[in-house]
Amino acid sequence: MTSNDTGNDILTRPATKAAVRDADRAHVFHSWSAQGQIEPLPVAGAEGSYFWDYDDNRYLDFSSQLVNTNIGHQHPKVVAAIQEQAGRVCTLAPGFAVDVRAEAARLVAERTPGDLDRVFFTNAGAEAVEHAVRMARVHTGRPKVMSTYRSYHGATAAAINLTGDPRRWASDTGSAGVVRFWGPHLYRSHFHAETEAQECERALAHLEETLAFEGPNTIAAIILETVPGTAGVLVPPPGYLAGVRELCDRHGIVFILDEVMAGFGRTGTWFAADLFQVTPDLMTFAKGVNSGYVPLGGVAISDAIAETFEQRPYPGGLTYSGHPLACASAVATLNVMAQEDIVGNAARIGERVLGPGLRELAERHPSVGEVRGTGVFWALDLVRDRDTREPLVPYQPSGPDNQPMADFAAACKTRGLWPFVNMNRTHVVPPCTITEAEAKEGLAALDEALAAADAHTTAGRAR
Amino acid sequence: MTSNDTGNDILTRPATKAAVRDADRAHVFHSWSAQGQIEPLPVAGAEGSYFWDYDDNRYLDFSSQLVNTNIGHQHPKVVAAIQEQAGRVCTLAPGFAVDVRAEAARLVAERTPGDLDRVFFTNAGAEAVEHAVRMARVHTGRPKVMSTYRSYHGATAAAINLTGDPRRWASDTGSAGVVRFWGPHLYRSHFHAETEAQECERALAHLEETLAFEGPNTIAAIILETVPGTAGVLVPPPGYLAGVRELCDRHGIVFILDEVMAGFGRTGTWFAADLFQVTPDLMTFAKGVNSGYVPLGGVAISDAIAETFEQRPYPGGLTYSGHPLACASAVATLNVMAQEDIVGNAARIGERVLGPGLRELAERHPSVGEVRGTGVFWALDLVRDRDTREPLVPYQPSGPDNQPMADFAAACKTRGLWPFVNMNRTHVVPPCTITEAEAKEGLAALDEALAAADAHTTAGRAR
Repeated sequence: MTSNDTGNDILTRPATKAAVRDADRAHVFHSWSAQGQIEPLPVAGAEGSYFWDYDDNRYLDFSSQLVNTNIGHQHPKVVAAIQEQAGRVCTLAPGFAVDVRAEAARLVAERTPGDLDRVFFTNAGAEAVEHAVRMARVHTGRPKVMSTYRSYHGATAAAINLTGDPRRWASDTGSAGVVRFWGPHLYRSHFHAETEAQECERALAHLEETLAFEGPNTIAAIILETVPGTAGVLVPPPGYLAGVRELCDRHGIVFILDEVMAGFGRTGTWFAADLFQVTPDLMTFAKGVNSGYVPLGGVAISDAIAETFEQRPYPGGLTYSGHPLACASAVATLNVMAQEDIVGNAARIGERVLGPGLRELAERHPSVGEVRGTGVFWALDLVRDRDTREPLVPYQPSGPDNQPMADFAAACKTRGLWPFVNMNRTHVVPPCTITEAEAKEGLAALDEALAAADAHTTAGRAR
Repeated sequence: MTSNDTGNDILTRPATKAAVRDADRAHVFHSWSAQGQIEPLPVAGAEGSYFWDYDDNRYLDFSSQLVNTNIGHQHPKVVAAIQEQAGRVCTLAPGFAVDVRAEAARLVAERTPGDLDRVFFTNAGAEAVEHAVRMARVHTGRPKVMSTYRSYHGATAAAINLTGDPRRWASDTGSAGVVRFWGPHLYRSHFHAETEAQECERALAHLEETLAFEGPNTIAAIILETVPGTAGVLVPPPGYLAGVRELCDRHGIVFILDEVMAGFGRTGTWFAADLFQVTPDLMTFAKGVNSGYVPLGGVAISDAIAETFEQRPYPGGLTYSGHPLACASAVATLNVMAQEDIVGNAARIGERVLGPGLRELAERHPSVGEVRGTGVFWALDLVRDRDTREPLVPYQPSGPDNQPMADFAAACKTRGLWPFVNMNRTHVVPPCTITEAEAKEGLAALDEALAAADAHTTAGRAR
C-alpha cells in the first residue's frame, strides 16, 4: 500500500529517511531520553518478527518493541479487524454498552484466573495500575500500598511511586502511601539465601515482618508483577506467590498482580499467574492484550471488589475507557491467539529452543552470569566475573560506565538483531509467534554479539 | 460493512441488543458509576452528529460523546487514513523515528501558539497532565503546583489531585504538592464582583496574594484549563490569562494551559489560548486532536523547557508514546480540519446559531440562569430562581436531589437529543462539524426539554 491509495493529501507523511529524521528531531519529544543525545532510528516498516529501516536493514525483534507485540507485527487478521471496526465505529463514550467492548471484556474474563470476571478498560498499563490502586484503597478504606524494589509499574504519579527502578527517583514524592519491600531473586539474594526454597521462605518472612511493623490494617494492597519484567525477568520461586496470597487473605489486603508485561502468552501460559495457580483480587494488563496495535490496558476485578462498587460509585474513569477500536483489536487478538495456539507456541519455543539455546550460550560466554525465564520471557544477567557476580555495568549506569552494554547492543544491531537491554541485562523477549528458525537465527546473532560483552569480563581481559 | 466481510470468527461480537446488554452487564466495569445503578444504552452505530441504538432511535449528539468528536463520528477520510495506516504499521516503540509520528508532531506544533514546537505524545489527557507537571517540576526544581477549584484535569493520581471537582474527593491524597485557588467566574463570583473587569482584577489579586503567602519560589507551575470545561464552560474575562502569564514570568513559574477539552476547534479557534493571545510554557491536549478515533493525547513544549531535557534525560515515558496508528489519525484529522474549515464552522455556528439561539431560550425559560460560551462550547447554568441564582440542584447532587436534572436529561433523550449534563448545568458541545440545520434541530429539542427544568423553578412551581 502506498500513500496514494487513499489519494493522500489527508494522511500526509515525510517520504524519505532524511525527512523523517529531520521532522522527528524538530518536533518529537522522546520518552526517557536526553533529547540532544539520541539519534532515533527511522523505521520504515514491520512484519511478523521483523522490522526494517530506510536502508533495507532488517532487524529480528528480540524486544517485541517494548515487550508488547506478542502476536508479532501486522498480523493480517487483526489488521483486517481494525480496518473493519474503523469503518463501523471508532469511538463511543464509556457510558454506553458497545458490542466489541462487551466482547473484549468477556474474552479477557474468560482467560483470567478465578472470579476476575469484570473488566475496567484503560488506555494502557500505567493507568491500569492507577485504577487498581484506587479500587483497593476505596475497597479497604486503607491508605498504604506495598510494592517491591526491582519492579516497574508505569510513569503516572501513583504508578511511578510504586516502581522499584531508578526511573522513579526524579518523580519520587517522598513515598507517601507507598511501602517498598524486597521480593525473591536468588541470583542476587537480598536474604543471603543459597537455595530457591530458602529464598522463598526468607522473602516471605521479610514481607510478613515488614507487614507486622507497618500495621497490616493500614495496608490496602500489595502489588507485584507476577514475574517482574524490566527488572530482570525474576521468576519467583515455587510457593512465593501462594505465600503472599495467604498473607493478604489473613490481613484483608487486596492482592494486585501486574501482568502488563507478563500476561497474554509471554510466559507460555495465558497469564503468568497460571504458572503458579494463584488468583489475585485485581489483575492489571495491557501490551499483549492486543499486542499494542491500538493503545489499551485494563484491570480485571474480583467479585468481592466489584460488589463494593455495585451501589457506591467507583470514583474513577477516563474518556476512552473501553474504546471500541481498541476493544475490537483485543477481540481479534485474543481469538487469533486461541485459534493459532500462539500461547502454546511461546511455551514450546521457550522449552525447546530458547531455554536450551540460551543455556548453551552461557556455557561458552564468561559474561553470562545467569539465564532465567520461561516461554518467550528470558533474561541473561551479564557479569564481569561469574564468581563474584559483579554486574557488567553498575546499577543505573551512565556515560562510559555503560560502555560494555553499549558495545553489546551495537554488536547485536550490526548482526540484524534488535535487543532489549536494561542495565547489565539483555532480555530475550521476541513475539510469542516466533518460529523455531527465527529463534535460532537470533541465538546465533546473540552468540556473536556476546563476544563484545565477554571482552569486558575478568576472563576476557585476562586473555 | 457486516461482520461477515472479514469472515468473522476473528472479530466476534454479540449480535443483538439483549446480547450486548447482557455481556456488558456481566463483564464491563464502567467509569464513575455505581455498577448496579446504571443501565448503559446499547449503541449500534454513529455517523456525523448522530448515533443510534438498536431500536432505531437516533440521537443528535450535543455532547460529542465526552466532548471529543470534534469532527463528528466516522469522518470518511479519517476512517480511510486509519485503515491505510493499520495496513502499514500499527505500533512501533517510542524510541524510533516514524513518519506519521513526526508528521503529527509537526502539524500540532504548526497550530500551537508561540514556541511550543516539540510534542510529547501520551495516550490521552490525564497522562498529558501527569507529564506536563513532571516536566515543570524537573525544569524548575520546585515542588508545588497550583490549580483552581472548578476544574478537571484527569483521573490518574497527579491529575486528579489537581482537579477542583468532587470527583477528586475519594482520591485526595491530602494535597501534598498541590495548592488550589479560585479562578474567575462572574456569575458565581468568589470575589463579590459585579463586573467582568472587577472579577478579573480581584481574581488576579487573589492569585497574587496566595502566591506571595505560598512562597513563589516553591511553585513549579500554575495549571489552568484555558476555558474550564466540565466545570461549566467558564470563559475567563479579558486580561485574566495575560495577568496569570505575567505572574508566572515574574516568579519563574511554568504556565500550563490544559486544552484537552478546549483545544482543536471547540472554541471556534484552533486553541482557546488563541482567543486570548496568550502563550503558555506547556500545553496539554487530547480529545479533539484526533476526535478520539484512536486514544491519543500529548504535551506541547516550549523551547526553554525542551532545552532542560537536551542533555538531561526526561524522567518519564510510556510504551505507546507517539503510537503510529493514533498519530496517523491525528495527521488525517488535522488536515481534514484545515481543508474543510471545521474550526471556522465552529466559530460561525457559535456566533450565528448557538449563541443567539441559546440566549433566546434563556429569555423564555426561567430555569436558565446564564448562557455562556463560544464556538461549539456553551453552558446553560440552570437555577431554581434567577434572582437568587440558586442552582437547580445542589453541588454534587445525588438521588432525589438530582431529580430536576434527571427530568431534564430524560426529556432531551425522548426528543432525540443526547445532552451533556453536569450538576446544575447542561453544556451544548456538539461536533465542530455540526450544520446550521442540526444546531437548530437541537435548539428546538432543548426548548421543549427545558420545560422539565422550568417545572422545578420558583416561577414554575408558582404556576
